[in-house]
Amino acid sequence: MNKAQLFEQIKNKRSFLCVGLDPVLENIPKHLLKYDNPVLEFNKQIIDATKDLCVAYKPNTAFFESMGLKGWESLIRTWEYMPKDIFSIADAKRGDIGNTSAMYADAFFNESKSQMSFDAITVAPYMGKDSVGPFLSYKDKWVILLALTSNAGHSDFQLHSTPQGMLYEEVIRISSEWADSGQLMYVVGATRGAEFENIRRLAPDNFLLVPGIGAQGGSLAEVCKYGLNKECGLLVNSARSIIYAGNGPDFAEKAREEALKLQQEMEQILLSAGLI
Amino acid sequence: MNKAQLFEQIKNKRSFLCVGLDPVLENIPKHLLKYDNPVLEFNKQIIDATKDLCVAYKPNTAFFESMGLKGWESLIRTWEYMPKDIFSIADAKRGDIGNTSAMYADAFFNESKSQMSFDAITVAPYMGKDSVGPFLSYKDKWVILLALTSNAGHSDFQLHSTPQGMLYEEVIRISSEWADSGQLMYVVGATRGAEFENIRRLAPDNFLLVPGIGAQGGSLAEVCKYGLNKECGLLVNSARSIIYAGNGPDFAEKAREEALKLQQEMEQILLSAGLI
Repeated sequence: MNKAQLFEQIKNKRSFLCVGLDPVLENIPKHLLKYDNPVLEFNKQIIDATKDLCVAYKPNTAFFESMGLKGWESLIRTWEYMPKDIFSIADAKRGDIGNTSAMYADAFFNESKSQMSFDAITVAPYMGKDSVGPFLSYKDKWVILLALTSNAGHSDFQLHSTPQGMLYEEVIRISSEWADSGQLMYVVGATRGAEFENIRRLAPDNFLLVPGIGAQGGSLAEVCKYGLNKECGLLVNSARSIIYAGNGPDFAEKAREEALKLQQEMEQILLSAGLI
Repeated sequence: MNKAQLFEQIKNKRSFLCVGLDPVLENIPKHLLKYDNPVLEFNKQIIDATKDLCVAYKPNTAFFESMGLKGWESLIRTWEYMPKDIFSIADAKRGDIGNTSAMYADAFFNESKSQMSFDAITVAPYMGKDSVGPFLSYKDKWVILLALTSNAGHSDFQLHSTPQGMLYEEVIRISSEWADSGQLMYVVGATRGAEFENIRRLAPDNFLLVPGIGAQGGSLAEVCKYGLNKECGLLVNSARSIIYAGNGPDFAEKAREEALKLQQEMEQILLSAGLI
């Protein structure tokens, strides 16, 4: 999916919501345990209940890997089930030397080899340009590079000062030479509201993937105040507060209610900004 | 496996060789294609041919993930096949917010959930302390943190100067407060020979996992000159130059010959250093 198509979807759905699919077997409703693959059934029902309200799905690969072979199968089947006109993100935080990143690109972008072809993958920047390059060789596929994350540990290295600025600023500045805003997004935590103005100076045109709304405590209004650009430029992720809104037979309806609240809030923001 | 057990194995085998298992279907000998799982058969024969010469195996998860569900199964079966008295490293370069890193820890350390329980996992440091912590909660399991990598892109961020030193030095300095040398190793590329003296100043007691010997051009002698410590302190990885030493029916013998050359070189180094 290219940038114009993504923005078109945002305008049509009046939403820039990304639903995070982080299934934990212990947390999913008990009545689903009768299914052969409860995690897959959970994901399917969440997708069915939210697909008109969100523009992206983001399965976090860790949650699937933690369940062994069955988990990896659930990831593949979940990808298969996602409507292909919705932006799909493998939240995998990968990155390695060039020949190895090429293998990760096969794993998440090359359906003929791996049975999955996401639109985007999250990548850790520490190993530099050649660890990112192989993902960029796929047309209309995206790298979402970690810049300023939502967790407490963000301050251990990301805020380190260098002669050119803080490390996360350097990650944005240097990586912007590797690809343009048609293939490169950045992860910026919603809990970093005050930094959005600064990030928009460095990356005016890039989409930002924003986790941390909801369970992690970030504010949508604060994110949008500085984060919105002329093509929206934001994918705001919510996982736990949507997918675990309920844990009874009506969990999917509860998830929809939470997603709808966010979509309605986003619609107002898009209207106020004159984007729809 | 704890540090004393690892050093004991090094002394017994007179080797600090780690064999990297990076199987690529196109590169493995044609006669193996008749097997139901050629990649698994390839790994098994490499393990059989080298297990008395090496102290560690390091499957790179990217190579397995690139083959989809069958690949993940091969990873599990390869882990199962590894002799459990040999140190096992999931070269996975993971790392995410705390609740997600806990899932990755389940994926690679918790056999009851994921069918695999490696001794160690490679982790990217960018997200800081809470992205590393969940792995450390497993007794006698190890985090191998990326410090100074072997690829060209190492210079993009790892060499950035900060008020306290270069970024990779800060990664070592700060992370050494999170765990001691009984659970924390660092990845230092063999292609960074000149930096080993400096790294040993910062991490005198930690084991270093050293990729880059062989295909990537690093020198074993140069690595050992400054890298050895009183418990050896080095796991030197070789992948392509061993596993693809041959590609005919005798590929395992050829792999053994290459591993033997390295083991014999390492034996001399250990003898010269008075460690055996």
